[in-house]
Amino acid sequence: MSDNNRVIIFDTTLRDGEQSPGCSMNLEEKLRIAHILDEMGVDVIEAGFPVASPGDFESVNEIAKTVKNATVAGLCRAVKADIEAAGEAIKPAVRRRIHTFISTSPLHMKYKLQMDPETVVEKITESVTLARQFTDDVEWSAEDGSRTEDDFLCRCVETAIKAGATTINIPDTVGYAIPADFAARIRMLIERVPNIDKAIISTHCHNDLGLAVANSLAGIQAGARQVECTINGIGERAGNAALEEIVMALRTRYDAMPFTTGIDTTKIMKASRTLSAITGFTVQPNKAIVGANAFAHESGIHQDGVLKHAETYEIMTPESVGLTKSELVLGKHSGRHAFKDKLREMGYGDLPENAFQDAFRRFKKLADRKKEIFDDDIVALVDDEVVRTQERIRFEGLQVQAGTSGPQTAALTLIVDGARRQAWVEGNGPVDAIFKAIREIVPHPDAKLAVYQVHAVTGGTDAQAEVTVKLAENGKTVLGQGADPDTLVASCRAYVHALNKLLVKREKAAPDEGP
Amino acid sequence: MSDNNRVIIFDTTLRDGEQSPGCSMNLEEKLRIAHILDEMGVDVIEAGFPVASPGDFESVNEIAKTVKNATVAGLCRAVKADIEAAGEAIKPAVRRRIHTFISTSPLHMKYKLQMDPETVVEKITESVTLARQFTDDVEWSAEDGSRTEDDFLCRCVETAIKAGATTINIPDTVGYAIPADFAARIRMLIERVPNIDKAIISTHCHNDLGLAVANSLAGIQAGARQVECTINGIGERAGNAALEEIVMALRTRYDAMPFTTGIDTTKIMKASRTLSAITGFTVQPNKAIVGANAFAHESGIHQDGVLKHAETYEIMTPESVGLTKSELVLGKHSGRHAFKDKLREMGYGDLPENAFQDAFRRFKKLADRKKEIFDDDIVALVDDEVVRTQERIRFEGLQVQAGTSGPQTAALTLIVDGARRQAWVEGNGPVDAIFKAIREIVPHPDAKLAVYQVHAVTGGTDAQAEVTVKLAENGKTVLGQGADPDTLVASCRAYVHALNKLLVKREKAAPDEGP
Repeated sequence: MSDNNRVIIFDTTLRDGEQSPGCSMNLEEKLRIAHILDEMGVDVIEAGFPVASPGDFESVNEIAKTVKNATVAGLCRAVKADIEAAGEAIKPAVRRRIHTFISTSPLHMKYKLQMDPETVVEKITESVTLARQFTDDVEWSAEDGSRTEDDFLCRCVETAIKAGATTINIPDTVGYAIPADFAARIRMLIERVPNIDKAIISTHCHNDLGLAVANSLAGIQAGARQVECTINGIGERAGNAALEEIVMALRTRYDAMPFTTGIDTTKIMKASRTLSAITGFTVQPNKAIVGANAFAHESGIHQDGVLKHAETYEIMTPESVGLTKSELVLGKHSGRHAFKDKLREMGYGDLPENAFQDAFRRFKKLADRKKEIFDDDIVALVDDEVVRTQERIRFEGLQVQAGTSGPQTAALTLIVDGARRQAWVEGNGPVDAIFKAIREIVPHPDAKLAVYQVHAVTGGTDAQAEVTVKLAENGKTVLGQGADPDTLVASCRAYVHALNKLLVKREKAAPDEGP
Repeated sequence: MSDNNRVIIFDTTLRDGEQSPGCSMNLEEKLRIAHILDEMGVDVIEAGFPVASPGDFESVNEIAKTVKNATVAGLCRAVKADIEAAGEAIKPAVRRRIHTFISTSPLHMKYKLQMDPETVVEKITESVTLARQFTDDVEWSAEDGSRTEDDFLCRCVETAIKAGATTINIPDTVGYAIPADFAARIRMLIERVPNIDKAIISTHCHNDLGLAVANSLAGIQAGARQVECTINGIGERAGNAALEEIVMALRTRYDAMPFTTGIDTTKIMKASRTLSAITGFTVQPNKAIVGANAFAHESGIHQDGVLKHAETYEIMTPESVGLTKSELVLGKHSGRHAFKDKLREMGYGDLPENAFQDAFRRFKKLADRKKEIFDDDIVALVDDEVVRTQERIRFEGLQVQAGTSGPQTAALTLIVDGARRQAWVEGNGPVDAIFKAIREIVPHPDAKLAVYQVHAVTGGTDAQAEVTVKLAENGKTVLGQGADPDTLVASCRAYVHALNKLLVKREKAAPDEGP
């Protein structure tokens, strides 16, 4: 175990987060998140579960090629094929880790693994030994560790370290732990496992009882020096410990918890917002650190107090998490150069030329229709361009009649594989009519509309609408987004975007999900 | 201090929650929430801050008249007029409490109160003594208690108890505490304050660092026997400790935290959803207990595990929080009787007859257009009726043209104070055209559109859309809702609903906001 005060931030947004219902991302989206995580100083990026599907393998492999600073980890069960896939997938990385896990609790060994404890111990030795053939950086996880018997947990941990594990992760897989007990478990390992000084202890806490962050911090205080966490706390069920909360709690309460991380906290808002935009997973206004209200003070006296002395109510500054007021930035007279400068400033300097040109055209059109253009408008517009790749179906035109006197109709023109196709359809409301028209032009009877969400990107009556559409087909889901001042056009673009993704969606299986 | 293991649940959704940005509720909405809280077994309902405005006074007073089981509390500063207003407002309640507070931290005393510590101690005696003239149940709060010096905190607490306070609340006003320190502070009070056995110790934790629930639980473990919390964790900035997380953590981990509450946990989902619908504050999918994903398991093996043995991954059952699958309940052939039965089953037995008739008419119209009607559809529809009271403006008809070839136009008919009024307007998108048409018929130049949100109530292409509109005028905000299968009609209804509220919105000031 390390005895210094530096805590390793292990982000699993792209693995545990991505496998939660409604959060699946495509390769391009994963690369964008990985880039932001790397840029913000995450130490380890768990990029995926390579054996799960060719798509997962490719994602981990591509992330391994592009990430510059962080260690790239691939997850695998205690199974030969899993470990080999993980080893292969992470090969291009500058720093690479294999993360292998097996269940150690009585309940999981009996009902999930159907193995006896002796077999589990053998599997630990085998899996860690094999993993070490691919990299010297091997993490071993005791799935359901918080419900594992002390003696057996000690034996498993000792076995893993003896076989070469350099990080020992104790997941609270079902979100059952409370801080005092979780801390006691970490201390117990430090006291009882003879070779524990040869590994870093890690936490991986789920939030089912709302205690993931508190348990992670208790783990650190007890001696853990790695925390596994996700942006916005996404993850299975109630999610994982939120990266932003752990990092800001350590930073704000350094007096009581003297631990540091390598995170540039001013990148937190960008990471949170980009992930929300990609997944369609909203952050509630009262979410700690990244919620819209987190730094908002409503009532007169509070504001007065803040003015009198910021510390009266503010324990962190909005700037420390990268929160800047969404400012008026560009108008209809802004040119290509100003637009490019703005994109660079907002972290979109790497936009390919054709995407840039398209984005600029759409920006000018937007500027004609909307007086004030905010940072958020630009983000919506550029995000839309970035994901608009390799489309088989292009949106061309839409005419809608709606209202109370019915019928609601949509006249839609799409370009499908280069050919102009039209449909005129009645529906139950304008959105239903539009979606039926799309289905008429490009039939996809097995796909269901799983999510339809409209967000007004910025305030004002002429706000640009951003629409999220999720389609589900045979257990696979795709997410499409569209932005336009006309909600109905945005809805149509979002559906077409999702449908394009569905057409290219590769087979993806999910043999297991990890701790 | 009580030495038993029963924890008093003090809900401040209607006070701390309601004063957070975007959460203000009208009287009717507050009464609905109060009814649900009372029904679910909350011990104390903090109903508002009576001196803040005539509207606040009236809300507390009306809640005091209707709540049957819970104690009704009114908040007040250590100021004569505040305490008298609170005493008067809670008078009709079966059980009544005055909750008075003053800041005790060096920072707050100096910058907010501009009082020296001696004056603060005098104010404590005065305020608690005065409060006791109105009721024997007096709670005293040390605002910013978690940043107050130990000696001074002990002295203040002793003073308050000597003056007659029966509950002593230690707020973590700025969300700065961490569990171990917060617990130590509670233990310190129990050890050092000589008359502490005459009062119940309470916690009031804010969530700025994501630790509100953990701090509250640590407080209980250290000896506190009341927790202040809110539904969905709403409240200033990152909110308060979430009631549902505290209650379910205590219930699930009774083995480690042997404390009970009086909460009927099966009412949790209803409370959460009703509050979300009223405030427009969404709950993120990965929110613990009440998020859409909290009980969802994505991947194959997890589901398999759940099937093999529920406890493998489930530490709580969905049923324990009142989560039932939204079932097909009614269709187009369902009659008045079935509809009334269903409403009663869903807790809407008390709907006035005319609201019921309107709801039934809209249900039949909906059933004509939508094959399957789910519980959530009924909730949306009835909620819409319940709040549709005393309208000066009624929506009559709408015809919209939209799409890419423009112009987008809306032809709108409203009944304003009984007279039919029409407008035909071009806009930047259909929603803009509709809202402009409303503004043309009923000018309200000072009001701004602050929020425009569309939620698809249930899945499926013919989902009913629920739209939330928030208007802001001179610092006051109103929230309107509308539901219809046609998004544009729902948008129009929501705006008209908000505008009706704006027209009757009473003056509301906010002299202070409490701990």
